[in-house]
Amino acid sequence: MIKIGIFGYGNLGRGVECAVAKNKDMELVGVFTRRNPESVKVRTPGVQVYHESAIEGMKDEIDVLILCGGSATDLPVQTPKYASMFSVVDSFDTHARIPEHFAHVDAAAKAAGTTCIISCGWDPGMFSLNRLYANCILPDGKDYTFWGKGVSQGHSDAVRRIEGVKDCRQYTIPVESALEAVRAGKQPELTTREKHERECFVVAEEGADLARIENEIKTMPNYFSDYNTTVHFITEEEMKRDHSGLPHGGSVIRTGVTGMNDEHTHVVEYTLKLDSNPEFTGSVIAAYARAVARLNKEGQTGCKTVFDIAPAYLSDLSGEELCAHLL
Amino acid sequence: MIKIGIFGYGNLGRGVECAVAKNKDMELVGVFTRRNPESVKVRTPGVQVYHESAIEGMKDEIDVLILCGGSATDLPVQTPKYASMFSVVDSFDTHARIPEHFAHVDAAAKAAGTTCIISCGWDPGMFSLNRLYANCILPDGKDYTFWGKGVSQGHSDAVRRIEGVKDCRQYTIPVESALEAVRAGKQPELTTREKHERECFVVAEEGADLARIENEIKTMPNYFSDYNTTVHFITEEEMKRDHSGLPHGGSVIRTGVTGMNDEHTHVVEYTLKLDSNPEFTGSVIAAYARAVARLNKEGQTGCKTVFDIAPAYLSDLSGEELCAHLL
Repeated sequence: MIKIGIFGYGNLGRGVECAVAKNKDMELVGVFTRRNPESVKVRTPGVQVYHESAIEGMKDEIDVLILCGGSATDLPVQTPKYASMFSVVDSFDTHARIPEHFAHVDAAAKAAGTTCIISCGWDPGMFSLNRLYANCILPDGKDYTFWGKGVSQGHSDAVRRIEGVKDCRQYTIPVESALEAVRAGKQPELTTREKHERECFVVAEEGADLARIENEIKTMPNYFSDYNTTVHFITEEEMKRDHSGLPHGGSVIRTGVTGMNDEHTHVVEYTLKLDSNPEFTGSVIAAYARAVARLNKEGQTGCKTVFDIAPAYLSDLSGEELCAHLL
Repeated sequence: MIKIGIFGYGNLGRGVECAVAKNKDMELVGVFTRRNPESVKVRTPGVQVYHESAIEGMKDEIDVLILCGGSATDLPVQTPKYASMFSVVDSFDTHARIPEHFAHVDAAAKAAGTTCIISCGWDPGMFSLNRLYANCILPDGKDYTFWGKGVSQGHSDAVRRIEGVKDCRQYTIPVESALEAVRAGKQPELTTREKHERECFVVAEEGADLARIENEIKTMPNYFSDYNTTVHFITEEEMKRDHSGLPHGGSVIRTGVTGMNDEHTHVVEYTLKLDSNPEFTGSVIAAYARAVARLNKEGQTGCKTVFDIAPAYLSDLSGEELCAHLL
């Protein structure tokens, strides 16, 4: 059994917990939190919640520690810190800072003899893998990534900060005609506005100026001003009833040409439709936690990304079984 | 530069040749044939065609030999034979015999210190990879593979053997309603007939009994009797004008559930739309030839499959570049 610890019990932590429950060769040995452990209720029978300070005494009880904090302030500190005690997996997703984060984690992991995977999930993660594979197969081509339809937490939060807004759920939606043009192999040049649109469901405070709120959303730089945005005002009951899930997904598409005269076009598409973004992310992480445990047993230490992991390491089947059943 | 040899110059050999031309770090050093070399014209300027017997003297001039023969009789003999002299890649696709083929190639490669990848292409190959990744991420789920729309050489050949048939092109077509049900996450149980249909374009000999030919096609066991099949009789001119390409493609889809009560459904789909089956297969092979050359340099010898190769090995970019640009 691979013994898993979960550090941080928000949406992602709960998603990882669900994923561990689906993997017969994994066992959840504890959840670690910065909150009062007695205030946290986990869903796996018999699993204890510990204060984060308890973790240093549990080195022998955990094979892989999964870090479920945020990329802005938690993971830049936590991942190198815990990489010096445990093999860890995180889902660090600030693309621009990945090289720096990698270097810190790699140094800590190599010094401690642990094995770590950063930036694991679906983007970065499975989307990155599919970009890489398709780029290597079709060197003469063009990449497209579409996100959604799905809830963007960052955009929802940005709207919530507007005066008079009680709650918001923002959906990112790919523009269907753009997707169709890409899938047809046409390699269009697409502006930000042409690729995605945004839809906001907003609960306003009583008496708030709805026209002002709508205008503030639509003109917000970086978040909304470059997109066509639709704003719907709804009640708290409607928000709870219709928008409590965290669906997401998207498509990575590469189109490219082959032939001595570039006469043949190919379209490679990877598409995800996810009812629960954190549970799917947690499921990717669980599969890579298996790889981490095996690599560490083999003595392969340091920081890795999904690019560095041979796919067979994700599976609990032997090489012979994989050849016979999945190849 | 990675020095590539191509063994066998049919559709796949020509596809590999096109792919090598698209990879700036590769160089085609020769094409080897069992035919009279003077009868074979290659399309890469300056590349020589050799009789197969010349290959044994060229061990120092080739980094990776790509075997482009057929799976029925060529590769079971050729791949182990040439694995004892060169690092090789093949596209062996007789699924049931892969374990046996693997064992033969592995023994030869380990004895000779070469590195080999078998069963490389899109199915087996990219489709296998996507089955593996999706299975590891969603252990509680169901796999579906749809092929087409595309030309099946085996089915086209089977029709050509019917008396009175001069030529045939057979298209395998996924049933759209089945694809939709799978994409909706419904996990339907589908019979052979419900998943694919077949469409044949037939050139008959003058005076042939068309009704008999159509009946023989539709009732042919294994090939057609389990499918809904449409037969069109066309002229030789129409065949040449409308059916001279070798398009193919398909979709690997896994749907699965997560959540403590299986309350969330996820759909993972990988879809290929290929104008030229052999050129895309050749492009996958070229990317893995790069991996073979690098693995061999590192001293990692023996037989591998796509499952055993970390994705980063396929790229000519460094780990740092991959992290910065594709992750």
